Amino acid sequence: MIHRNTGKYRWDDVDVHPYKEDGSIFKDVTRQTLFHGGDDLAVELRYFEVGCNGHTTLERHEHAHLVTIIRGSGRVLVGDIVSSIGMHDVVQIPPFTWHQFQADEDEELGFLCIVNPKRDRPQRPGPEELEELNAIGGVAEFIRI
Amino acid sequence: MIHRNTGKYRWDDVDVHPYKEDGSIFKDVTRQTLFHGGDDLAVELRYFEVGCNGHTTLERHEHAHLVTIIRGSGRVLVGDIVSSIGMHDVVQIPPFTWHQFQADEDEELGFLCIVNPKRDRPQRPGPEELEELNAIGGVAEFIRI
Repeated sequence: MIHRNTGKYRWDDVDVHPYKEDGSIFKDVTRQTLFHGGDDLAVELRYFEVGCNGHTTLERHEHAHLVTIIRGSGRVLVGDIVSSIGMHDVVQIPPFTWHQFQADEDEELGFLCIVNPKRDRPQRPGPEELEELNAIGGVAEFIRI
Repeated sequence: MIHRNTGKYRWDDVDVHPYKEDGSIFKDVTRQTLFHGGDDLAVELRYFEVGCNGHTTLERHEHAHLVTIIRGSGRVLVGDIVSSIGMHDVVQIPPFTWHQFQADEDEELGFLCIVNPKRDRPQRPGPEELEELNAIGGVAEFIRI
């Protein structure tokens, strides 16, 4: 079975959704699910796209992410490190690690994300955790909450 | 943790291997493993690249493949159907389904492949199975064995 790409980071038989629908704080992010799990492959494959200057939610959770950039460039916080990311970089987000993706100002950031179908609920930082994050060099200037 | 792409479908800390080292029949294919499983994500992520006019082994097995094209174009046999494939198409290979990837004559075909870390041994077609495959319109002209 082939999910045919239309050439514009959209797939023929795949719906485009908002990134989240639970009121979390993010800016200009869409989500497409390319594989829901099955055939004894216990993962989902999603494509997320962050618009110019947009960002995902700053959060952590027990489940891991395995991310491959396939469009544009941006930056990512993983734990206490902010890194530039670009085409075909592979980013591992370990369990219970703060993370946030941001697109560059003039370019979308699109990435494939592999996760377990069963996932725990993401946590957002409370006041104490924010204080800890803000004490890390480079992180305070980066995070958007 | 970031596996940094070098810009040429190679990653900083990832070795390039031949596609297979068991004597199977293939032509001009390399394999790079980007994720070996871990963090409760029970999958491997590999990048395969088929050189111009190259091909993977015609085979089937119990484990499934989830493939995303990230370079070039080509064709794929899945079951009894030969399809053209190109950038960002997503191809599901269900369990125990004959499959073979071929690059176009003038372009490499590169794809990410998600699989279970524990996999059964691939089977190649015997004489009777080849006869069945060759009886399917379009397949006889496609397969390389």
